[in-house]
Amino acid sequence: MSLSKNQLKLITSLRKKKYRVTTNLFIAEGIKVVNEFLGSKFELEHLFCVDDTDFTNHENVTVISESDLKKASSLATPNNVIAIFKIPVSNFIEKEGLVLALDAINDPGNLGTIIRLCDWFGIDQLICSKDTVDCYNAKVVQASMGSLTRVGVFYTDLKDYLSNTNKAKYATLMNGENVYKTTLPKDAVLVMGNEANGISTPILKLLDNAISIPRFGSLQQTESLNVATATAILLSEFKREN
Amino acid sequence: MSLSKNQLKLITSLRKKKYRVTTNLFIAEGIKVVNEFLGSKFELEHLFCVDDTDFTNHENVTVISESDLKKASSLATPNNVIAIFKIPVSNFIEKEGLVLALDAINDPGNLGTIIRLCDWFGIDQLICSKDTVDCYNAKVVQASMGSLTRVGVFYTDLKDYLSNTNKAKYATLMNGENVYKTTLPKDAVLVMGNEANGISTPILKLLDNAISIPRFGSLQQTESLNVATATAILLSEFKREN
Repeated sequence: MSLSKNQLKLITSLRKKKYRVTTNLFIAEGIKVVNEFLGSKFELEHLFCVDDTDFTNHENVTVISESDLKKASSLATPNNVIAIFKIPVSNFIEKEGLVLALDAINDPGNLGTIIRLCDWFGIDQLICSKDTVDCYNAKVVQASMGSLTRVGVFYTDLKDYLSNTNKAKYATLMNGENVYKTTLPKDAVLVMGNEANGISTPILKLLDNAISIPRFGSLQQTESLNVATATAILLSEFKREN
Repeated sequence: MSLSKNQLKLITSLRKKKYRVTTNLFIAEGIKVVNEFLGSKFELEHLFCVDDTDFTNHENVTVISESDLKKASSLATPNNVIAIFKIPVSNFIEKEGLVLALDAINDPGNLGTIIRLCDWFGIDQLICSKDTVDCYNAKVVQASMGSLTRVGVFYTDLKDYLSNTNKAKYATLMNGENVYKTTLPKDAVLVMGNEANGISTPILKLLDNAISIPRFGSLQQTESLNVATATAILLSEFKREN
């Protein structure tokens, strides 16, 4: 009962998107996150743990040593378990309500935080442009803390989606309408743009409304809000009772 | 013109709080962040850069090689400049308005994001319990992106502060009053708790009001919001016109 060379090779290869795409597998680590996936529709491929007390009900469980766990883990402080899950096939279903769409979000931590926010605010479908970071990236899986089991993430051509949806379309810009003074509809798409460049021009052309979070500080400030914190505030505005 | 052994030793030692405390110095890196500090009240001790075009107006500038920059930097991709600044002496001044107080925030990224949020929402004083992560930690400096030049961060005994202030005191809890249905005063202290444990009991006893961000998702969810995104939503609620 230990980690074979091929298993270690598979686990470390899944840090790269191209191997996740060819194998349809991804990695989750740590007791809390792995348990969330085990309790969901996600299908377990193989689980490696130092202590298997919590996992005796599952097949494909291998007990490994602490040192093997360290070799395989991408975490600074590995926590008992590394599991390989299958990437599910899932389809976006257009329905009434708020949809969040991301245009080229690069940072895995930001995407993970945004998936967690969707979960909190009851948004069960997140649309991403094809150049948004992969949601099965290890850092996204860890940052979203199990919310990936409840929020469907769909990579698609945003232009196509926005051209075809009947929802009201909102861009988040620096010079849009004050979000606190805007009546926001329940049936809408909110588009958040890239960390450095904002929403790309072809996407922006397809959006009907522009909103902003007003700045309360001094004029000296040049920085925008981080995209994840801006998303938090905007989802709160869409969901709160006005 | 290169980086001496002692200079390299000083720079790397300043990654540790104990050396920052004994020397009263800290490190800022990258053109954007360093320029924010250079344009503020912060006093430059020494600046090291590969290209000094932008820094010819400053004293104590040393041109160094790319390889010296890499040795000294704590960033994965160093960006031209590392600067040592003096930690300023600053005093908290009780005045009308919203004060944010942090109880044992551990994660440097969270503190950096929260400082940036304070800057956006015009909150120029942030009070931290003494066991909150140091705001001159390199990761906090980088994550706050220059907002430290505009937001004063004060480490103090939170119990003392809360016992003496006349402001209305708000705790953020899982089971508090719905923040969207609460009328929030302009003159208040909002307390955010530790990432894992929330607000500590002795602090909680000193707070008059408890508020929550309602959850819109399914009951399956067990996770709370990340403290930085929760802070974003709550500052927005305190600052928006109702």
